[in-house]
Amino acid sequence: MEKRNKVFIATSLDGYIADKNGGLDWLHSIPNTDQVDMGYGAFMNEVDAIIMGRTTFETVCGFDCPWPYSKPVFVLSRTLKTIPEEYVGKVQLVNGSLSEVLKQVHGQDYHNLYIDGGNTIQSFLQEDLIDDLILTTIPVLLGGGSSLFGDLDQALNFELVSSSVFLDQVQQVRYKRTRK
Amino acid sequence: MEKRNKVFIATSLDGYIADKNGGLDWLHSIPNTDQVDMGYGAFMNEVDAIIMGRTTFETVCGFDCPWPYSKPVFVLSRTLKTIPEEYVGKVQLVNGSLSEVLKQVHGQDYHNLYIDGGNTIQSFLQEDLIDDLILTTIPVLLGGGSSLFGDLDQALNFELVSSSVFLDQVQQVRYKRTRK
Repeated sequence: MEKRNKVFIATSLDGYIADKNGGLDWLHSIPNTDQVDMGYGAFMNEVDAIIMGRTTFETVCGFDCPWPYSKPVFVLSRTLKTIPEEYVGKVQLVNGSLSEVLKQVHGQDYHNLYIDGGNTIQSFLQEDLIDDLILTTIPVLLGGGSSLFGDLDQALNFELVSSSVFLDQVQQVRYKRTRK
Repeated sequence: MEKRNKVFIATSLDGYIADKNGGLDWLHSIPNTDQVDMGYGAFMNEVDAIIMGRTTFETVCGFDCPWPYSKPVFVLSRTLKTIPEEYVGKVQLVNGSLSEVLKQVHGQDYHNLYIDGGNTIQSFLQEDLIDDLILTTIPVLLGGGSSLFGDLDQALNFELVSSSVFLDQVQQVRYKRTRK
């Protein structure tokens, strides 16, 4: 079965996923009264599980809303030993090398994976483990914060698959990795 | 007369304008046999002069091609005292604060300015002096190099004006600064 690791994330024009104070308010700087989902629902239908880092997990837990995922979530963590009771059945802890983690997840028959969280995405990219990259760009220069992308040992070529604009203001481009 | 400072530049997916070795080969990673100019000619028609940093000037001087600009070029430099003879009449040296530099350039009746070079663009953005930003994205993650964007004291909001794809692979988005 084909296995694909996918990223779906919004950045500022200067490539940040959180502002200097860790804030995410700028993500909502474009009015969205009709709650256009900017492809998120369609993307979630493409994946059968989510892998995220602990920081992202704790951020999502802190959101003032019900648990937002209908797919199984795997949380990468070396420090967490147990999942808070309310997340049991929704979330599994995983650790080890990324290839070990992927083996565990694939072993549960999940093959199309949503890879989320800045550190996790960077780790996957460092090992050239990302196949699809859907980048949504909010038209603001934050001038600092947490970068989506980090250092890589080698350049990675992608191919533009499609491009759209939401709400007249938000560019979204889908790329896939081209391996020669 | 309305004055506008404009940026037209290509970056990698991760926001670099030169790779780890200062190289620009990746800019040509998408085959362009018909030499599509990706809006460069139309952009040059919008501007009446160019302001660039010394590093960019020296890079352009090093290209194995005739001087590529038909518009006057102002080179920002604190260290250069004279322009090499072959560039006299094409290039003027300017220095001082950006507002002093702009005053000199506007004084010569140039009002729509192409601001070029990483350091120069960053300096203009730090003083919120960029009005139009045309960003062309090559679908490669370089994983390091010279970043287009740098730190800012304040976030700067832009508005998406238009979006196009060249050569099926190269996304170009035009933004303008929205000042409230």
